[in-house]
Amino acid sequence: MNNQPVLQKTPDSEQFSAPEIAGVYRAIRERRDMRHFHSQPIEAEQLLRFIQAAHQGPSVGYMQPWRFIRITDIELRKQIHQHVNDERLLTAQALGERTNEFMRLKVEGILACAELLVVGLADKREDYVFGRRTMPEMDLASASCAIQNFWLAARAEGIGVGWVSMFDPAQIRTLCAMPEGSQPIALLCVGHVEKFYPAPMLEVEGWDTRRLLSDIVFENAWESSKLP
Amino acid sequence: MNNQPVLQKTPDSEQFSAPEIAGVYRAIRERRDMRHFHSQPIEAEQLLRFIQAAHQGPSVGYMQPWRFIRITDIELRKQIHQHVNDERLLTAQALGERTNEFMRLKVEGILACAELLVVGLADKREDYVFGRRTMPEMDLASASCAIQNFWLAARAEGIGVGWVSMFDPAQIRTLCAMPEGSQPIALLCVGHVEKFYPAPMLEVEGWDTRRLLSDIVFENAWESSKLP
Repeated sequence: MNNQPVLQKTPDSEQFSAPEIAGVYRAIRERRDMRHFHSQPIEAEQLLRFIQAAHQGPSVGYMQPWRFIRITDIELRKQIHQHVNDERLLTAQALGERTNEFMRLKVEGILACAELLVVGLADKREDYVFGRRTMPEMDLASASCAIQNFWLAARAEGIGVGWVSMFDPAQIRTLCAMPEGSQPIALLCVGHVEKFYPAPMLEVEGWDTRRLLSDIVFENAWESSKLP
Repeated sequence: MNNQPVLQKTPDSEQFSAPEIAGVYRAIRERRDMRHFHSQPIEAEQLLRFIQAAHQGPSVGYMQPWRFIRITDIELRKQIHQHVNDERLLTAQALGERTNEFMRLKVEGILACAELLVVGLADKREDYVFGRRTMPEMDLASASCAIQNFWLAARAEGIGVGWVSMFDPAQIRTLCAMPEGSQPIALLCVGHVEKFYPAPMLEVEGWDTRRLLSDIVFENAWESSKLP
């Protein structure tokens, strides 16, 4: 991939340096959805840096809908793990012919990771109309961008992150005393790892393959001529 | 912000260099939702680099739900712009007492930007159950992470991106001949800019302020004790 910038309009002093640009592309390329962790703790300051990165994410109408609940109560962590395991079995059943294949996959690292975060959308989001009149789900889009910031910052610092979405939001809401109207969207497992997967784990495990760029890029209309 | 990595477990050769880490945090910090563009074209190769960065995003069950439609037909671009402007007026009405304040804001740069992309979720997503049994909306979460990759890669290269969500999905689906079951989620305005806003435009314009970190980070339960 050629990372040479095309920046005629930007004053030289404001351009990103070549290593800075390379760092961005490297974090994007080497980020992985991790399920294998060391239990070695990470520093609270480091975790806050990642949350700060998330908080610099874009948000529709500047609503900043994201909330982060740090789980430090080990009993609560175990309850969350138990619930995810229950949901894993229900998912396995729902997968039909791929049940056995699915059951061989490691789908979460909740008990082993250094830090577990519940990420949720705030309550009272109906007050925000800007950019959401026809698509209220843009709050989820914003919070997901924030999580991607967190993920990339952590990857740059060599810390693994896994986004677990195998849960019933109502159950997690109850477990974490979240108010009515709030919506948990992610369990983030965060911690040191032995190594990052060389490719997405579901690719390594043969669950699916990466699509060709020509299958996801169209011009003017769905599935017409492609980009060069 | 202290970006010193804490990486005891990672072999030295695999660590990100200090400038690489700084680049990631800088892109996150300086990324903006842009509405002001130069019309100067950007190279197709550069646009593809950003799409490739998006395609390296995480996806639930590795479904890779994102699709990018590059709008090169100027008449189509004008039709999209017209529709967004109609929706802008409806949003203004819905905002009640903030209508006039809203109408003074620039909310899109669709006609001025170098490239306009429609980003959508693919059709036939109901085939994917992995990680979506209880939360089918995780496809939107994945595609949003992909768009954040795009945004950060573009920012690193000095290119501005604006995510416009002021549209009726059904209208955009029709305009771009998208199949039933697909879902447009973003109009991405991409192009050269005179300068990036020093802070989020809605903060600069006084629409809202950035929340304190202590308002978005909780421990074990909603609004109990905070992180140090």
